[in-house]
Amino acid sequence: MAAAPVWSVDPRTGKRREQVAVEATPGEVGRTVAAAHAARAALADRATRAAFLRTAADLLEGAEGPLVEAADAETALGPVRLGGELARTRFQLRAFADVVDEGAYLGVAIDHPDESTTPPTPDLRRYRIPLGVVAVYGASNFPFAFSVPGGDTASALAAGCPVVVKAHPDHPATSELVAKVLRRAAAEHGVPQAVVGLVHGFDAGLELIRHPLVAAAGFTGSVRGGRALFDAAAARPVPIPFHGELGSLNPVVVTEAAAAERAEQIGTGLAGSMTLGVGQFCVKPGLVLAPEGADGDRLVKSLTDAVSDTEPGVLLDHRMRDDFVTGVAARAGLTDVSAPVTPGAGGVHTVAAGFLTVPAARLAAEGPHDLLLEECFGPVTVVARYASPQEITAVLSRLPGNLTATVQLSAEEAAGAGRGAELLAELTPLAGRVLVNGWPTGVAVAPAQHHGGPYPATTSTATSVGGTAIGRWLRPVVYQSTPQALLPPELHDANPLGLPRRYDGRLEH
Amino acid sequence: MAAAPVWSVDPRTGKRREQVAVEATPGEVGRTVAAAHAARAALADRATRAAFLRTAADLLEGAEGPLVEAADAETALGPVRLGGELARTRFQLRAFADVVDEGAYLGVAIDHPDESTTPPTPDLRRYRIPLGVVAVYGASNFPFAFSVPGGDTASALAAGCPVVVKAHPDHPATSELVAKVLRRAAAEHGVPQAVVGLVHGFDAGLELIRHPLVAAAGFTGSVRGGRALFDAAAARPVPIPFHGELGSLNPVVVTEAAAAERAEQIGTGLAGSMTLGVGQFCVKPGLVLAPEGADGDRLVKSLTDAVSDTEPGVLLDHRMRDDFVTGVAARAGLTDVSAPVTPGAGGVHTVAAGFLTVPAARLAAEGPHDLLLEECFGPVTVVARYASPQEITAVLSRLPGNLTATVQLSAEEAAGAGRGAELLAELTPLAGRVLVNGWPTGVAVAPAQHHGGPYPATTSTATSVGGTAIGRWLRPVVYQSTPQALLPPELHDANPLGLPRRYDGRLEH
Repeated sequence: MAAAPVWSVDPRTGKRREQVAVEATPGEVGRTVAAAHAARAALADRATRAAFLRTAADLLEGAEGPLVEAADAETALGPVRLGGELARTRFQLRAFADVVDEGAYLGVAIDHPDESTTPPTPDLRRYRIPLGVVAVYGASNFPFAFSVPGGDTASALAAGCPVVVKAHPDHPATSELVAKVLRRAAAEHGVPQAVVGLVHGFDAGLELIRHPLVAAAGFTGSVRGGRALFDAAAARPVPIPFHGELGSLNPVVVTEAAAAERAEQIGTGLAGSMTLGVGQFCVKPGLVLAPEGADGDRLVKSLTDAVSDTEPGVLLDHRMRDDFVTGVAARAGLTDVSAPVTPGAGGVHTVAAGFLTVPAARLAAEGPHDLLLEECFGPVTVVARYASPQEITAVLSRLPGNLTATVQLSAEEAAGAGRGAELLAELTPLAGRVLVNGWPTGVAVAPAQHHGGPYPATTSTATSVGGTAIGRWLRPVVYQSTPQALLPPELHDANPLGLPRRYDGRLEH
Repeated sequence: MAAAPVWSVDPRTGKRREQVAVEATPGEVGRTVAAAHAARAALADRATRAAFLRTAADLLEGAEGPLVEAADAETALGPVRLGGELARTRFQLRAFADVVDEGAYLGVAIDHPDESTTPPTPDLRRYRIPLGVVAVYGASNFPFAFSVPGGDTASALAAGCPVVVKAHPDHPATSELVAKVLRRAAAEHGVPQAVVGLVHGFDAGLELIRHPLVAAAGFTGSVRGGRALFDAAAARPVPIPFHGELGSLNPVVVTEAAAAERAEQIGTGLAGSMTLGVGQFCVKPGLVLAPEGADGDRLVKSLTDAVSDTEPGVLLDHRMRDDFVTGVAARAGLTDVSAPVTPGAGGVHTVAAGFLTVPAARLAAEGPHDLLLEECFGPVTVVARYASPQEITAVLSRLPGNLTATVQLSAEEAAGAGRGAELLAELTPLAGRVLVNGWPTGVAVAPAQHHGGPYPATTSTATSVGGTAIGRWLRPVVYQSTPQALLPPELHDANPLGLPRRYDGRLEH
């Protein structure tokens, strides 16, 4: 049987651009994983890894022109957005190099023998070591920042783990180009190119998660795809950690006082956030609880105006376009649902942004309207009009886990008056990031960041963005009664590497 | 149908002592979980939790007499061991209270707005919050330290999570008594007694892991039982973290130089470790790689003498006794396996300690001897005699994950000469705790401790012993652009609680 070709497709026309590769056979997946595994020792040195990551950032900068061009041709995301995403990707690679240099992520802890504890404590020295080969599943909507050179890859390499990336079929040419750049960066530091493996094909993705030498996986994508891989990871003879970001509704609550104070500003802000990148962000606000009455009407009016002004856009591929058109039609057809601006097919290859409204009471109990509580990828949101604070609580109690939850408060509420604190307490159990008077689109790469949330937002309690994302690819090991001569320098009493650590129970840095 | 009775059984006679309870119906499990969930707010205050844990330790101390008596009657572990285990349990409760007081476990991180990053950073403030109700599955072999008042319960309560414990059928009376003590401690601090739920019964255990309000689980037990619960946790509509400690062979490598230097000491030490607690420790050394030749013979001779002197002992229950007798017979019947001291039935209710020897070459490739690479619970170990360092490597490469791995080195090797470092590097991928010139039995409760290891030792990368065990029951949440008036004090700039934190990227304490 001939190998299945992998095509790069132009979503602006639906036409094939070029054949990029062929789908990997099980044998090829196995060889790629084995080569990555065999190369892992080259990533053992922290300084080498940090230098490799920085060189990768530099080389991506040098290759920006062709990379953005290829990505735009395959994703239609536009050169401005893609240039920004590539800059973010470089920043992220460098940020993980800094994390490696600092070394707090190693979690070094040293206890000296202590007869006063129950039971007595021997000499114990712990730090965290890399798990092994990490399988990375690239996302459709971020050809750079959540794909081959993205956060999963950067954090895994930072941890000392080789990666094998399963390229997303929406940008195979970009994936190939970027993998070459990363491998060139590896080679510059004497690291085998096999530490960045790349495979194409749906079956190859399943083969990858089942491979005995794959030690963990990172995923960004749909609930259906992510759950299938999560299930495969859990069903292995030796189960492995599966850190998947699957789907999120990202609820927004607008208080009556906030609507009274700045209905127009909120309506316009919401329009910007929900249509950004043609609504193809995992943190797009997909459900907005806004008050009934005149202030809520003003909000809806300004949302209507702003969304009506939005140009039709091209989604990442035609299957997504079909799903969007079908999905919004099914939602719009529900009882009591209106479409002030009708979302749907905007042309042969484009879609038009829009939004739906529904009485919040329709979402307060199980029924056909539960469809409105499921993520719909693309430029659409649902505004649920509530008649009372009890309705807000009722709807929130029915939501699955989310990446983000947002509340729009008045100035007085933000200062502590009224229901602000109470609403924050209601939103916190729903999400991993809670925002006040902001919009969830835009995820900063920062030490305090957390990009994750209760299932199905993520399949673990970890983050995929920010410094702590490195922890996904590590496991602790403790050495007991081990002579200093045999210990790695990280665990020497003298702390020759100057690492932050817990020393006889006390934090030191 | 009448509720199934739960009996306390005396393993010294196999006779029922008393009916302790009845197995929980699905409805009872549901009510217990719901009550625990409803009580969770009472655990929100850190100072209350720390005080509760310390009072629990105090009350367990006060109740030592009846607790040890009940536990001994059900487990035959003996009052000395059980008194020590209860002391360890109290120490552990107090240690987690200290962890709560210190607050480093919250992982507080604060980033102020920064326009210089790509993308720009808004105000971000992260800490870790409790997951919710934790299901705890008590272990057979530790009626205190890994059961109702054990590390899973202590760390979950410390994290702010109510627990529902599934009592182990080997000590239901002890479980009931201890639960009452913990509830009395809760009541002393105004915490609803429902934060410590207790259910009995196999089906109740499955019901528990599937309950929608159960947010995570801790387990210590067999590979078969643990894997079934792990699978159930992963198959839920909303999967939950399952931190299970399942099984471990705990390999020991004795170098030729070590055997030459102190064969007798190693043989005697091994006998003590493998027969401790009638071989019923998860860290019992179950496979020992010892050299062929005269020095190895001396080791085997001293092991033979010491194990021969060991009195028959009572296992925790008669099913375990049957499994032990069957298991050692199957192993002893393999080609080339000898039994210098025959393990097996030592009397009607007891078992006799013993050990087997086998040429290491028999373990170097797949075959019937793989049975020797599976844990056999009870007082037996396997000494594999190797002819070359290559045989050590070959056998180690075939081992599943372990809690511990040990190497016995000569004084010169321990000082850095010879193969010491190399062997340590070979053992590290196999285990979560690596020991030099010690024995794996005895697990200190210390900040640097790690009690866990690659599957099947544990089903996650977490520890079940030591301060970091609290992290299993927490998830991060970050507040973005949230006014200080609405933030918890943990996230205020002024740090009113004096918490260790990462502030604008820098570690502070």
